[in-house]
Amino acid sequence: MNLALLHDEDLVAADRALIRGRRLQHLQSVLKSAIGDRVPVGRINGPMGTGEIVRLDDDEAELQLTLDQPAPPPLPLTLVLAMPRPKMFRRIIQTCAALGVKDIWLINSYKVEKSFWQTPWLSEPHLRENLTLGLEQARDTAMPQVHVRKLFKPFVEDELPGLLEGKQGLVAHPGTATPCPTHLPGPALLCVGPEGGFTPYEVGKLEEAGCQGVHLGPRILRVETAVPVLISRLFDLCT
Amino acid sequence: MNLALLHDEDLVAADRALIRGRRLQHLQSVLKSAIGDRVPVGRINGPMGTGEIVRLDDDEAELQLTLDQPAPPPLPLTLVLAMPRPKMFRRIIQTCAALGVKDIWLINSYKVEKSFWQTPWLSEPHLRENLTLGLEQARDTAMPQVHVRKLFKPFVEDELPGLLEGKQGLVAHPGTATPCPTHLPGPALLCVGPEGGFTPYEVGKLEEAGCQGVHLGPRILRVETAVPVLISRLFDLCT
Repeated sequence: MNLALLHDEDLVAADRALIRGRRLQHLQSVLKSAIGDRVPVGRINGPMGTGEIVRLDDDEAELQLTLDQPAPPPLPLTLVLAMPRPKMFRRIIQTCAALGVKDIWLINSYKVEKSFWQTPWLSEPHLRENLTLGLEQARDTAMPQVHVRKLFKPFVEDELPGLLEGKQGLVAHPGTATPCPTHLPGPALLCVGPEGGFTPYEVGKLEEAGCQGVHLGPRILRVETAVPVLISRLFDLCT
Repeated sequence: MNLALLHDEDLVAADRALIRGRRLQHLQSVLKSAIGDRVPVGRINGPMGTGEIVRLDDDEAELQLTLDQPAPPPLPLTLVLAMPRPKMFRRIIQTCAALGVKDIWLINSYKVEKSFWQTPWLSEPHLRENLTLGLEQARDTAMPQVHVRKLFKPFVEDELPGLLEGKQGLVAHPGTATPCPTHLPGPALLCVGPEGGFTPYEVGKLEEAGCQGVHLGPRILRVETAVPVLISRLFDLCT
């Protein structure tokens, strides 16, 4: 946790917050904070800054807030992701949030096992928790939106063309002829398949909708590695 | 497993191999392979190609090998990594192997807890297993070298200058002024710190030895995310 993300309900005044639970524990056991220390904080979907610890006991810490910095810029990226295996799901969601992805669409694909959709990590509180962990890691406050679409064809035919408006559409697909572009000049929509990849039919449908098939070289990467590699290639994270 | 990596002891003739255990199980339960099928194979530190299944029973599969392709090019990178937390270690080692890193130095740092060095994953067989999983994921055969240095100062003062000869030296350090370069023209040595980063003293020593401090932008990424982001920025993985 490199920043404590404050929810509306944590605020007791415009410039005062109470924190408890996981974030309090982090202050106490990892940061070994004391009264008078300043810790990085931010308001969900708002500014960031510091919180000075003005009261600290076993149950809660009271922070005096100075929120005078903007959150880092969001990535101009819509990420369309075949629903990952539950074991990988949490980590991928955290990674996407940490990298600054704000618009995530979880879709079905032939190689997505039906059971993947049953994972409790898809529930609203768990999603929010893992997105929060990613934001707190990266020092960001802008909560990503996650959309769930359990039917491939209606999504690709009815929704994808609208999502692609004004964006460069890409589908990462090992074995295609075109290398993934670098340093995109504007917003993009990127589709990433499941373990084993999209089927040829699915790649065809995504291409029909306006996504260009691109490859990342001879190596086949796991989704959790491919996503940071693709994002770092498409956008300059240093700016 | 996108390729079955064959060890010398798997070969019963120059063009015949027997596979058992994990790799056999993958053929049977994931690929549902049958006699006559061709599966991707490669010899450790040698060529890659296909193996035609000529015999298949509960205990082993016999493959007729055609090894006519080179492994993908290695990354011209020496990665110096502060020893990661055991929970992360396996995954980071697999990721490095999958990305084509061939030279990994695990070093100590102030924020590396002493207990991290006790992990059984550092033993030779476990290291080799996780490197193998990374190579099999990425379809590569060249086994990376892993070096363990449990003392920071002697490594940085006595060994690092020699390792840096002919390479561009970099240390990833959030908050420095210089953005991480892109598309390096030649080989590099990259140092990545532990959770919480290298200390200012450590960054100073690494800089003294010839590494330039570089940042990845305002976001603070976990090591497992920072490594693919850095590699994708430094090198063109598509070539």
